[in-house]
Amino acid sequence: MSTFRAVNPHTAEEFGPEIEGATSAQVSEIIEAAHAPLLSPKDRSSLLSNIATAIEADRAAIVDIAMQESGLPEARLNGELTRTVFQINTFAKLVGTGTHLDVKIDKADPNYGMGPRPDIRKQNQPLGTVAIFAASNFPLAFSTAGGDSASALAAGCAVVLKAHPSHPNTTRAVYASIQKGIASSGQPKELFSIIEGNDPHITHWLATHPKITAIGFTGSGGVGKLLMELSAKREVPIPVFAEMGAINPVFVTSSAISERGEGLAKGSVDSALMGSGQFCTKPGLFILPSSSSATFLSEVEKYLATLSVGPLLNKGIADRYSSAISALSKKNDLKVFSGNTAATGIAVAPTFFVADWKVVSSTPELLEEHFGPTTVFAIADEKDFVAIASTLEGQLTATIQGTETDSVKPLFSVLSERAGRVIWNAFPTGVSVTAAMQHGGPWPSSSSHTTSVGTDAMYRFMRPVAYQGLSQENLPEALQDSNPWSVPQEING
Amino acid sequence: MSTFRAVNPHTAEEFGPEIEGATSAQVSEIIEAAHAPLLSPKDRSSLLSNIATAIEADRAAIVDIAMQESGLPEARLNGELTRTVFQINTFAKLVGTGTHLDVKIDKADPNYGMGPRPDIRKQNQPLGTVAIFAASNFPLAFSTAGGDSASALAAGCAVVLKAHPSHPNTTRAVYASIQKGIASSGQPKELFSIIEGNDPHITHWLATHPKITAIGFTGSGGVGKLLMELSAKREVPIPVFAEMGAINPVFVTSSAISERGEGLAKGSVDSALMGSGQFCTKPGLFILPSSSSATFLSEVEKYLATLSVGPLLNKGIADRYSSAISALSKKNDLKVFSGNTAATGIAVAPTFFVADWKVVSSTPELLEEHFGPTTVFAIADEKDFVAIASTLEGQLTATIQGTETDSVKPLFSVLSERAGRVIWNAFPTGVSVTAAMQHGGPWPSSSSHTTSVGTDAMYRFMRPVAYQGLSQENLPEALQDSNPWSVPQEING
Repeated sequence: MSTFRAVNPHTAEEFGPEIEGATSAQVSEIIEAAHAPLLSPKDRSSLLSNIATAIEADRAAIVDIAMQESGLPEARLNGELTRTVFQINTFAKLVGTGTHLDVKIDKADPNYGMGPRPDIRKQNQPLGTVAIFAASNFPLAFSTAGGDSASALAAGCAVVLKAHPSHPNTTRAVYASIQKGIASSGQPKELFSIIEGNDPHITHWLATHPKITAIGFTGSGGVGKLLMELSAKREVPIPVFAEMGAINPVFVTSSAISERGEGLAKGSVDSALMGSGQFCTKPGLFILPSSSSATFLSEVEKYLATLSVGPLLNKGIADRYSSAISALSKKNDLKVFSGNTAATGIAVAPTFFVADWKVVSSTPELLEEHFGPTTVFAIADEKDFVAIASTLEGQLTATIQGTETDSVKPLFSVLSERAGRVIWNAFPTGVSVTAAMQHGGPWPSSSSHTTSVGTDAMYRFMRPVAYQGLSQENLPEALQDSNPWSVPQEING
Repeated sequence: MSTFRAVNPHTAEEFGPEIEGATSAQVSEIIEAAHAPLLSPKDRSSLLSNIATAIEADRAAIVDIAMQESGLPEARLNGELTRTVFQINTFAKLVGTGTHLDVKIDKADPNYGMGPRPDIRKQNQPLGTVAIFAASNFPLAFSTAGGDSASALAAGCAVVLKAHPSHPNTTRAVYASIQKGIASSGQPKELFSIIEGNDPHITHWLATHPKITAIGFTGSGGVGKLLMELSAKREVPIPVFAEMGAINPVFVTSSAISERGEGLAKGSVDSALMGSGQFCTKPGLFILPSSSSATFLSEVEKYLATLSVGPLLNKGIADRYSSAISALSKKNDLKVFSGNTAATGIAVAPTFFVADWKVVSSTPELLEEHFGPTTVFAIADEKDFVAIASTLEGQLTATIQGTETDSVKPLFSVLSERAGRVIWNAFPTGVSVTAAMQHGGPWPSSSSHTTSVGTDAMYRFMRPVAYQGLSQENLPEALQDSNPWSVPQEING
């Protein structure tokens, strides 16, 4: 059993209690104990609200420890806590209505078009106990009580969370709040459990345990693919919902540069550096029109030279960043723009790369996601934008910065085939939690066509079950004619 | 390149034209040419209706050739053609409304709870070109124009169909009808293509072609798992929607036997022998209460002794059936009931097995699906039904035959965790095409939580795409405020 302690990115020093990594036996024990009672929509809604309320009540303490462990600024973490609470409450509102059960009732019909039809009723049911892997880069909104956990609890599943070792005490604080919410709802504490540790075996133990029915993951492509392989080898394979990142291309038209070049250049830099460049929606590739890239790039270069970023989240990210940057900086055909190393602790300098699209397209490392304050500016003939777009891999997002005079429909059409979210005249960083949000795109950005943000995220953790010919008293509540839960029922289409 | 001919199961003789198997180059060429134009809901609906109309118009010729190739009776095939046409028309009706696009519009909101929200709109979009593998056992309803093809066309995908070599000329006849429907709608013939041949490599070529975006399959667990492995090894893995069969357990209570034992015994035999026992919903395991199994089983034995079944669909199925039956018949602790070998051609005798649950549960071959006229009767203490149910693998269906006096809620609860459809006082054979139908259950019965029957089947072949901040003219039609396609739009939740 290995132990570890938290690290403060501002000082690179360890602090806080020694944390014991879970053993294989402990992981099993936690999973075996996990269970989620069946609740009415009203009770499930109030469980979620109580969890949200408990997290909000502990805001100051949670934000304080998260600042120490992530190095992120207070305003950002307060915003993230607001988002965390908001998304739990959004699920609470949805499940309170019972809409998520998607009840369809087709009553018996002796004169049905394809032959007599029996009474058939269908609802969504929770998968059981799911494993959620916390992300490092959103220590609140994509971690312990983040979108994946909230959507799984909303679906009616028990959650076993693999805590991210980058913020163990933040995890403990949020876990304590969640347990307050669970206790005040009269529910069992085994509805939500955490597994701590930095031993890579934990991932295997979790993913291969027979009682785990699905996996929610946000992180690197490497670990995402490992989880998929582990699932495929199980006696009973399970769905792996992995959000594995992207380079989120941004196409900039010459008319956009003419109209608002300076602001656009600064906005591009700011978006690439947001969260020290550790967002899964970071624009990692800008495609600039050769006709007007020179002035745009000189704005980027000037502005970047004045900037530094906060420390990276952990030493592992910083090491991978530095080695990628160092390898790329040695290439002859890349221009390099640099910012400053201002932060103490786990500090790095922002480093951007500029090259012709021909060079970029033949340098695979430039088309890969790199966590940290770096991005790529590729210069291309504007009339080749559609052709370039059609060579790109699957993306979480794809953006066009243009003006009303641009004919961008063909480019949007190609991008919508390659991304989960296409964006006009904004930057991809910042993901709103709404019914219409789609966070998840074609491979390799995600492992499935689902979303991990927004209310539709919960449908990942349920499956439809049909009931044929059951008497009213044997039917689940949501499917009964008397509709004791008052859920929406689609009857006979 | 290998050639083959159709076989008439009634005579076991080849007939009809020599059919050339597709080469690797031909498979590629067909896939490369496949394409599906974007259509309005109205136009897509009318395309589907036209296909249905064309198939209906060719009914007599299609049923005639299907009878020769499948050995199934005319009434059954007429019913299957009715179902085929009905399910295409059901999709036509649904897509005509645009409901399947699941449009959600969240307008920009500066006062949104988690911070200002941009305008975000989401719709479902077709995946592209999908590969559908036809099944042998429903030469119409699960083959060329069957549920998988219909749902993929409804979703807006181009279909490349792997024809089943068990009924090549039926496939050609239905393909010709489909092409009439496509032509009368002014659509390109590459919207729907067939690949013929019995070379197992064709499966590999299809599943690994980069342009294929999803796979729909109904068949054996072996091939389903192979398709999943092939997908996982692709540069871009794709979803595999495989329906791989089940043993569809039927629990019979002692009160049901007291109330209607004789009818129940006959009904059980008839359901197991339906389609010569080649339904994926065939009850392959009856669990009988020890208290009253004797009379029930003597009814089964007597009735079966009077029966024979039509020929099996092909020699491969017959060979696998005979070798499984022969191996099982040698086991000492199994009682064997037999029917008669009446059919000429590819003929076998119905063979049922009876044993205590203890024997059945320790004989893996008795808990596997066997295509053909066989099933298993396991005898158990009625108070162990719930415990037995909780040991079963994932199933397409699970049934209880009981009476009003039985307390079956706990048993239904366990079965609903193990099956896609649970049934009361009916038999699992016969699947109605409705909104509430679920045909697909937990692993190993299916590879995903989706359904391959009913209108929800089409959601397998679409993915959601969000559009952020686009101007009205750049938005897809379904997402525009003016709603030119008049589709349902969920606005601001």
